Amino acid sequence: MGNCCERVGNFFCRQKNTNVRVSLPAVCFVWQIAMIVLFGVFIRYDEESDTHWIEHRKDHNITSDIENDFYFRYPSFQDVHVMIFVGFGFLMTFLKRYSFGGVGFNFLVAAFGLQWALLMQGWFHTLDHTTGKIYIGVESLINADFCCAGSLIAYGALLGKVSPVQLLVVTLFGVTLFAVEEYIILSLLHCRDAGGSMVIHAFGGYYGLAISWVLYRPNLHQSKRLNGSVYHSDVFAMIGTLFLWMFWPSFNSAITDHGDGQHRAAINTYLALASSVLTTVAISSMSKKGGKVDMVHIQNATLAGGVAMGTAAEFMITPYGSLIVGFCCGIISTFGYLFITPFLEKYLKLQDTCGVHNLHALPGMLGGFIGAIVAAAATESVYGHEGLINTFDFEGSFADRSVGTQGGFQAAGCCVAIAFGLVGGAIVGFILRFPIWGDPADDNCFDDEVYWEVPEDEETIPPVLEYNNHMIHKHQDISESNFSVEQS
Amino acid sequence: MGNCCERVGNFFCRQKNTNVRVSLPAVCFVWQIAMIVLFGVFIRYDEESDTHWIEHRKDHNITSDIENDFYFRYPSFQDVHVMIFVGFGFLMTFLKRYSFGGVGFNFLVAAFGLQWALLMQGWFHTLDHTTGKIYIGVESLINADFCCAGSLIAYGALLGKVSPVQLLVVTLFGVTLFAVEEYIILSLLHCRDAGGSMVIHAFGGYYGLAISWVLYRPNLHQSKRLNGSVYHSDVFAMIGTLFLWMFWPSFNSAITDHGDGQHRAAINTYLALASSVLTTVAISSMSKKGGKVDMVHIQNATLAGGVAMGTAAEFMITPYGSLIVGFCCGIISTFGYLFITPFLEKYLKLQDTCGVHNLHALPGMLGGFIGAIVAAAATESVYGHEGLINTFDFEGSFADRSVGTQGGFQAAGCCVAIAFGLVGGAIVGFILRFPIWGDPADDNCFDDEVYWEVPEDEETIPPVLEYNNHMIHKHQDISESNFSVEQS
Amino acid sequence: MGNCCERVGNFFCRQKNTNVRVSLPAVCFVWQIAMIVLFGVFIRYDEESDTHWIEHRKDHNITSDIENDFYFRYPSFQDVHVMIFVGFGFLMTFLKRYSFGGVGFNFLVAAFGLQWALLMQGWFHTLDHTTGKIYIGVESLINADFCCAGSLIAYGALLGKVSPVQLLVVTLFGVTLFAVEEYIILSLLHCRDAGGSMVIHAFGGYYGLAISWVLYRPNLHQSKRLNGSVYHSDVFAMIGTLFLWMFWPSFNSAITDHGDGQHRAAINTYLALASSVLTTVAISSMSKKGGKVDMVHIQNATLAGGVAMGTAAEFMITPYGSLIVGFCCGIISTFGYLFITPFLEKYLKLQDTCGVHNLHALPGMLGGFIGAIVAAAATESVYGHEGLINTFDFEGSFADRSVGTQGGFQAAGCCVAIAFGLVGGAIVGFILRFPIWGDPADDNCFDDEVYWEVPEDEETIPPVLEYNNHMIHKHQDISESNFSVEQS
Repeated sequence: MGNCCERVGNFFCRQKNTNVRVSLPAVCFVWQIAMIVLFGVFIRYDEESDTHWIEHRKDHNITSDIENDFYFRYPSFQDVHVMIFVGFGFLMTFLKRYSFGGVGFNFLVAAFGLQWALLMQGWFHTLDHTTGKIYIGVESLINADFCCAGSLIAYGALLGKVSPVQLLVVTLFGVTLFAVEEYIILSLLHCRDAGGSMVIHAFGGYYGLAISWVLYRPNLHQSKRLNGSVYHSDVFAMIGTLFLWMFWPSFNSAITDHGDGQHRAAINTYLALASSVLTTVAISSMSKKGGKVDMVHIQNATLAGGVAMGTAAEFMITPYGSLIVGFCCGIISTFGYLFITPFLEKYLKLQDTCGVHNLHALPGMLGGFIGAIVAAAATESVYGHEGLINTFDFEGSFADRSVGTQGGFQAAGCCVAIAFGLVGGAIVGFILRFPIWGDPADDNCFDDEVYWEVPEDEETIPPVLEYNNHMIHKHQDISESNFSVEQS
Repeated sequence: MGNCCERVGNFFCRQKNTNVRVSLPAVCFVWQIAMIVLFGVFIRYDEESDTHWIEHRKDHNITSDIENDFYFRYPSFQDVHVMIFVGFGFLMTFLKRYSFGGVGFNFLVAAFGLQWALLMQGWFHTLDHTTGKIYIGVESLINADFCCAGSLIAYGALLGKVSPVQLLVVTLFGVTLFAVEEYIILSLLHCRDAGGSMVIHAFGGYYGLAISWVLYRPNLHQSKRLNGSVYHSDVFAMIGTLFLWMFWPSFNSAITDHGDGQHRAAINTYLALASSVLTTVAISSMSKKGGKVDMVHIQNATLAGGVAMGTAAEFMITPYGSLIVGFCCGIISTFGYLFITPFLEKYLKLQDTCGVHNLHALPGMLGGFIGAIVAAAATESVYGHEGLINTFDFEGSFADRSVGTQGGFQAAGCCVAIAFGLVGGAIVGFILRFPIWGDPADDNCFDDEVYWEVPEDEETIPPVLEYNNHMIHKHQDISESNFSVEQS
Repeated sequence: MGNCCERVGNFFCRQKNTNVRVSLPAVCFVWQIAMIVLFGVFIRYDEESDTHWIEHRKDHNITSDIENDFYFRYPSFQDVHVMIFVGFGFLMTFLKRYSFGGVGFNFLVAAFGLQWALLMQGWFHTLDHTTGKIYIGVESLINADFCCAGSLIAYGALLGKVSPVQLLVVTLFGVTLFAVEEYIILSLLHCRDAGGSMVIHAFGGYYGLAISWVLYRPNLHQSKRLNGSVYHSDVFAMIGTLFLWMFWPSFNSAITDHGDGQHRAAINTYLALASSVLTTVAISSMSKKGGKVDMVHIQNATLAGGVAMGTAAEFMITPYGSLIVGFCCGIISTFGYLFITPFLEKYLKLQDTCGVHNLHALPGMLGGFIGAIVAAAATESVYGHEGLINTFDFEGSFADRSVGTQGGFQAAGCCVAIAFGLVGGAIVGFILRFPIWGDPADDNCFDDEVYWEVPEDEETIPPVLEYNNHMIHKHQDISESNFSVEQS
């Protein structure tokens, strides 16, 4: 099989050059060196991760080390970290011959993006204008992971159709756009979006869809044989799904207010996710002959509840409110996989490999508007006087903002996120159409052979070779001596 | 294979209808809507997850947000959450063609059960009779996960032989029975059982065994070809085993007393588990020709130490006491797989797919009695005066209970758990025998084809090639009709 | 296939006896019983895990349970625990037919080693000479896990070439040597090495390499067919890689100072790891035709940054300093896989299955020297007066040590670790050459069939049967009816 695939590979190299031997290392090196320089100029430890913490504590009469923000946020950070690398990574291993690309490029993109994210978010949010430095702590690491999530979501739409170099470009612009829209939404519009329904999921989803739309491949059907799962690749994908599902309460509570804020966000997300699972299974089973459940739905739509709670999780949405959100989003997301994705591909010429539209773009947008409604419905009797101020951070120049106004700004924020995703994605898409990025040919997509050293595998016999002497090929895989067979 | 299996499927549909296209969605929707209504009526945030926490803290002069129960329990909660969804889920992926059902239905059952658990446990334990509300926090989420564990253990005994609809029925009754027996054991008998040797493992194990006994399939051997593992499915199962093994200290310490209680429970469980691994390997190797180790034992019996420490982990059982418990339970559990499971199947007509008897029922029962002995042996010199009161919660109406009496009640509690499991399971089993649940035929068990859309695998040759000679043979692999070979 | 392999097995038994049916259980039982006795004599709960904690708190006027060390360290402990069992375990599943041995024996070795580690480290570090007891808490558990890591690293070099009994011997001596060198380095030389670049990685790496060098197999090429990966085994290995990569910040911060110490160590490690990923991908891609990335590099070299930060992570190395460390180590480690490992095998007769030289030995040694340099460069202006004392623990008899001296001692410590690894490994290697350990024959390495009950697998066709009609035998594998075939 190996050598057969090599042949296939070389054959297409004639039309399309997928060689990234120069470009990929070049981008990685240049980028990493730039990061080192910029970190040297700008990034320092914040006071809670600096040895001066001891003095710091004295100044702020903090009683104990345990009040270091590290102990409030580190467990949630590690859960988010697992979601980014194992969750997103393994969710994208479902393709039969693109598991290396799914988990491996996800790894590369996230490690690449989080460094740039620390800088971009630092410049916009935590730059100390007196010293000109960015001071980072555990919360910065969480935000950097969040920032990467946007680009990883976009990767979901492009999975199998782009080169690693293109992915790095997607991430470079993705992180930059993210930091800008986040600044506008959280700082200028003063929206609340702790779990990032708007800034992460709506933005990332539409960003990826716009890119994919510009990169439309009319002959992608030529790779149809590889655009599907095998039994074990679906089980691998479940690893991703479950770690995303389990840790989503940490995702939505990671950067909310200490104490009741984190506590409430975790509870709300936990409930919404549970509710999504039941409605996803229900719709999936209804849609298929014999009521068979479809792994694609289980792997994705079960997570919609977590996406949709990204904004509202820290509000007093009530436990049953969370269940309702999960209930609806599980249904909508599964319908998306059944009807919207095929529709988009057929009529809008939009190829969305992982269906990020149904898992991120749509539920993220809904989450944004749900957040707006819940915010507008907030009352002092429910939140308490101090509670209302803390929850919506009605302080400083926003002290006199009403919950109604807040709701309006939340809705506006959601539109900003979508606009950034669509416009930014379109522009990046056009950049990616230059013929310099080493992207694969239409009949060579969804194939790890293009960018990875793939081991020869007993398990796969290319159907093309079946009709003629099966023995030789089959045989080669294992004993690698053809003589005995050819003799027989 | 696809269409061949379809044929097989359709063929049995004549005798046995495995179509759940109406029943599964119906149950999911009705259930989820009921949950939303009941949550609306009963469930509210507790004071530590409510925005009023700020006022609350003033009242209780709590010095810092870090004393919110969230920071005491959330890391343990996430570990428990991983055990329920990844641990139990992947442990059940070991069957060669039932991995989707193992991890997927586990996912469905747990998400379904935890909502009902929040209500049932709330009504029995935390219902505020003045307001008529149940106030939930992170500890409620942990207890809900625990409550699901009982039903998931039962699923282990039924794996591959029941329909998803039957599983939901098992869970509905399982959670209800769990809440009742838990109330009797923990509240009425005032037992201590933080890690649930009795209330979770003994109950869940015997519940599943009783159901399986009632649902005995005399012709299950017809599915023998699928009732086993393949190389990679065993590796998947190790993911489940290891996450259960690693996080069991969190499981047993998740709801114990703050401070030394959680600390001690984690240490004891860690030691018992380590000791189980060695004795499991020893017995497994002794039992096989050439001293080969059996994956079934490694995947299961290594966990017996954690199960058996469920009750005693928070007591002063001493580190070497923990090692002894793990030592014995590793041996007993492995012997169970070698001798008891075959015995049960042959003479008691009890088919236990995952051997939950050896991993949960038996070690859980032992754990209950170990807890009783350790409790009865407690002295003030070891625990200290305050320590003894805190550990056994000798307060209020139980202030004058002696440790001897406590030991007696612990033993009684264990019997209650077993009785609930056996009787409840028998009843549920009979309910599941109605021919309306869409369970698979005897020669169609352990097969994902029945309830899942299964991708066509390279491992199974694409139907297009059926015409040539090779295919016929290949085809036999599945259909097992040897005629053509004998003719050739 | 089963019976064929049996035949193969029996065949080699004539020359080489791989039967461990007596030795493996004997070692496990004797060892576990010894542990129980020794724990009974020496090990007790420390004051924070003892019920006396309540009184204890009063004495030390600690305000809250949250200040129990459990809450400072337990989340990091669980992350470390995952690295030891899932991280190391799954990283070693990459071989096509040795995944059981990789994850299973890793499990056995770690469970075996951590008990001995608690005793050895206790005797050297925490033995209370008045009571003659060792008092353990969560930090002891972390240290025990660390101690096992040394032996697991050594296993990486021996993977597939040794029997489980030999592994237990490797671990027994490995843990003992570890405790001694750790005592010399941390206590006598008063080095700082929180993440164990020196005491864990340099020691463990060279220990394994020395053993492997003594156990050189000139005819190992006879097992060449099995010394490689298949597609899905590489995906399994990525589970190990990612959990190691994600949780390495917890590894390096698990036992550092409360507060800013843990906070800073996590940040530094996070950054170094991110930087390693980019340079690893760059070098890997440069080295291959068409710029294809090699899974071996991604699975291993991406972790080099974490190894190299083991010593310096808790120092004020600065964020960009961390990036530089990761940058260099990613390059060096990948070059190691490309050139050093083949060189070692060809000219030094050193067979290093997992390339631990490139992932642990070399980066660990570098990490030790990096730590020495960073320590020597420490200034009071950067660390603050108190900070400097806390970070390097300049108290008691070391109160007047200068940072320059400290740097010198750090470098000396690194040499001690390497010396212990090389000398200890050589001795243990010679012990393992006695023909009593049941190690596999040269043409039987990397094969789970030798020590595991392996399920019959549709996926593999035994080469022995290739010469005659493949089909019929293929057929046997499943239908297990040989008569029809023998007739034909």
